[in-house]
This record gives sequence, C-alpha cells and structure tokens, in this order.
Amino acid sequence: MLQFFDFLGVAVFAMTGAIVASRLKLDVLAFVFFASFTGVGGGTLRDLLLGVPVFWVEDQTYLIVCVAVGVTIWFAAGWIEKLGKPLRWADAVGISAYCVMGAAKTLSIGDVPVVAVMMGIATATFGGIIRDTIAGQPTAIAKSEIYLTAAFAGAAVYVCLNAAGVPQWPAAIAGFATAMVLRGGAI
Amino acid sequence: MLQFFDFLGVAVFAMTGAIVASRLKLDVLAFVFFASFTGVGGGTLRDLLLGVPVFWVEDQTYLIVCVAVGVTIWFAAGWIEKLGKPLRWADAVGISAYCVMGAAKTLSIGDVPVVAVMMGIATATFGGIIRDTIAGQPTAIAKSEIYLTAAFAGAAVYVCLNAAGVPQWPAAIAGFATAMVLRGGAI
Amino acid sequence: MLQFFDFLGVAVFAMTGAIVASRLKLDVLAFVFFASFTGVGGGTLRDLLLGVPVFWVEDQTYLIVCVAVGVTIWFAAGWIEKLGKPLRWADAVGISAYCVMGAAKTLSIGDVPVVAVMMGIATATFGGIIRDTIAGQPTAIAKSEIYLTAAFAGAAVYVCLNAAGVPQWPAAIAGFATAMVLRGGAI
Repeated sequence: MLQFFDFLGVAVFAMTGAIVASRLKLDVLAFVFFASFTGVGGGTLRDLLLGVPVFWVEDQTYLIVCVAVGVTIWFAAGWIEKLGKPLRWADAVGISAYCVMGAAKTLSIGDVPVVAVMMGIATATFGGIIRDTIAGQPTAIAKSEIYLTAAFAGAAVYVCLNAAGVPQWPAAIAGFATAMVLRGGAI
Repeated sequence: MLQFFDFLGVAVFAMTGAIVASRLKLDVLAFVFFASFTGVGGGTLRDLLLGVPVFWVEDQTYLIVCVAVGVTIWFAAGWIEKLGKPLRWADAVGISAYCVMGAAKTLSIGDVPVVAVMMGIATATFGGIIRDTIAGQPTAIAKSEIYLTAAFAGAAVYVCLNAAGVPQWPAAIAGFATAMVLRGGAI
Repeated sequence: MLQFFDFLGVAVFAMTGAIVASRLKLDVLAFVFFASFTGVGGGTLRDLLLGVPVFWVEDQTYLIVCVAVGVTIWFAAGWIEKLGKPLRWADAVGISAYCVMGAAKTLSIGDVPVVAVMMGIATATFGGIIRDTIAGQPTAIAKSEIYLTAAFAGAAVYVCLNAAGVPQWPAAIAGFATAMVLRGGAI
C-alpha cells in the first residue's frame, strides 16, 4: 500500500516540479532536477524526521521515475499546459497521496497520532515549498490556505479511521478522497 | 534543565509563527502550522545534525503545545498586537532559550566547543529563517545582525562557563540573560 | 582523497558565503555565519540523506576553516572584489569539488549510480541555494542552468569512470576538471 501511494506522490509532484521549470523556461537538466527534488522532497523530510533510511537512496527506481517524468514534461510541456491548470491538479493528487503516506509511515513507527497528522501535512506541503523557494516564487502556503486544509483533513481522516480499527486500504482511500475533494473543489 | 528551556523555546517561537500567520491574514489551520514548524524548527535541525532522535517525534507534548499556542493566538491576535512589538519580544526570548539549548545538547554528545557555539546559533535562528522564507519575507538575518550577535554571545557564554566548570543551571541562565540583554536592548 | 576535496569545497563555498555577507554590508559575525552554513551546507545535506554522521559535527576543523575564511574575507573583501568576479570563480571551484565528493561518498555506501549523480548535483548546489535564500536573493538555479549542467557533468564523469574501473584519484580529477571547464567557461 505504502509503496503505491509513494510512487503516485513522487510522480505527480515530479510533474509539478517539471512544469515550474518549464514556466521558468529552463533547460532539460533543470526539468529533471526540479522534478527530482519536488518529487522526493516531502518523503525525504518525513524519513529524516522519523529517523529511517531515506526511501530513494536505497531504491533507485524513485529517481528514475523523476528523471523520466522530467524528460517527458520537457517534450510535452506545451501540450500539457493546454489541459487546463495541470499544475494545480497534479499538486492536488500529490498532496492527497502524501498526506496519507506521511501519516501512515509515522503510525507504523509509533503510536503518536498528533505527530502523524502533522507529518502528513509537512510531507504533503514540503515538496511544493522547496520547489517554490528555489524557483524564487512566493510559497503556496502563504497564498492559499486550502493546501493546509486539504492535507490536514486527509491525514486526520486516515489517522482517525486507523484508530477506529478500519483496515489500511479503505482508510487510505478515504483520506486520499477527502483531501482530493477539498483541494480539487477549490481549483 | 534542557526540557524547561526546550518547552520555553518551542512555545515562544510558536507564538512568533502564529503572529506571522496573523499578519498574513491566514486561517486557523495556518496559525497552527506556522506555530508548529517555527516552534520546533530549530530543535529539529539540531537533532538531525547531532544524529539523535528528533525530540517532538517521540514526545507529542511539544506539538500539542504548538497547536494550543496557534489556536490561542488566533483568538487573541488583535489583543496581542496592542502589547507593543510582541513578535520581537517573543523572538528575543526564543533566541535566548534556543542558543543555550543548542549548545548544551551538543556538549552532552561530544567535547566540541566550536561546534556547540555554531549549533547554538543555528538552532536559535533556524525557526525564524524558515518562518520568514515560507511567509515569503526577507529573513531577519539579512536585515539585522543583532540576531546573530545575541545568539552567538549567549551560546559562547554558556560554553565558556561550562568549560570553566560552572554547573549547568547558572551557566544556562547566564547564557540566556546575555542573549536577552543584547537582543532585548535592540528592540 | 575525499578529505582533500571536502576541505577545498568547504573553504571556497565559505568564501562565497562571506562575499555575499560583504555585499549585504553585514558585520563580522554574519560573515562567519554565512561562511559556515554555505561552506558545510552541501555536505550536510549529503550526510543526512546518506544516514551517516554529519562530517563537521565530529571534526571541528571544518568549522574552524569556515570561521577563518569568514574573518579573512571580512578584512579582505574590498581587495578581493577587485580580482574580478571572485564569487563566480569560487562558486565554480566549489561546485566542481562537491559534485565529485557527493557522488564518491554515495558510491562508498552502495552501488546506486543514479543516486550518486543526483547526490553530486544536490551536494554541489545546496550550499548556494541556502546562501541565496537566506540572503533574500533569487537562487542561482532559477537564473542560470549552467550550475546544474556543470554539477551533473562532473558527477556523471566520475561515476562512469568509477564504473569503468578507473582508480579514484584520476576519476575524481577528471570529474572536477569537467565541471570546472563547463562552469568556468561560462563566467
């Protein structure tokens, strides 16, 4: 379960990083770099804070996904922008996947629900924060609170269902859906 | 000793985070989020660098303090602003508590006085740096050197007294007072 | 080998940090602080991500180098600016040393070439990114892609030669020279 959400979150956040590189009119390497640190940023913070090995250092697949996404967006950026707000939709999916992931990995390490919710929020927003900081733009957090609300709601739903004994998959899907509805509804 | 300064530093830095959220006119969740990462930011960097478990991941009390501070400031922001420069005074107390804490925790791990002083400075300033970065404002470091001077002096006094054999409490209070006088005097 | 490149990278990045402090017209303590976090920033990220002890926490020499560089530049800033683009040349040497170092230390821990190249890029650019962020300036990454290209090429040359069985010193020098030519040629 964790792994599916991990790959989904990495891939869509990588997409948002590459789209920002595209709007800055950078070259293909910058697409790959922005895709990589945006894609793995949130999960990296989570693993460092939890004191577990950083997920992408041990398994190269994650970085290879980021490189592939960066190169693909470099070819397809013009086409993707026509889809309508691709950055916001990818961001929405990424936040929804990561807030659940962050909470779930925290709970797998200790019984600390408050920490799990906060970790869900931090995991979901950190990739976007460093993306915007490096790109020299105001961070999304300072502009729109719906990011935080969606990440908080998704993580909280997962943590509550988990505490209520609901199995991991339905709890994760409920958390993901909650964040998606809140964030997606605001696009 | 360490724990008292830790809670003090977390609470007042959380206050500064919440005040910044208030000035950005954000919602209650943003108050809590700004309070949390500003409150625990410096200590988190310290623990990561020292390679010890991150303090608030193991003990939920710290985050609960941040949430409580965030919600309280959300209700009381208008009233607090009337006190006169609340952000700067809270910042001063936080820097004074954290520069001593950062140095003390480093010395408890190894006999590295230069590292301890630098860790005191980094611990004391990091919460404010990420708070200002996420809020999209110039960091206080680039605007006013007194932050660094106060944190440096507080940490250095503590480390020197410690090396001279002074017990931990008087050394910590002397370090705290030194930083407070320097930072408070400049408000 | 690693240690030589480490000291070189720390010293020249410390120089760039101090030069930025000089351009912001800050005081001597800010020179030392900017020198320190810019000097050790990239290597710190690398060590945290690899899960190994942070290099400068165990060995005070690195910080002492940063303090010495900060104080020296404080005295010599006017003279150094006359040399012509000192910031860019120091940055070029630092990026070239760090991209090789980051890749080499990663390969010493596991057989993950894709991770090693990305770690080389992250290590080489992170010090400059936090320096520019704290100074409140747009990061170099968003302005000029040659940083990424040089770091990528240097790390990739080292990793490829390493995989081809070339001994560490010639591989490191080839990687360093590749990055230097690319970055230096663009000054």
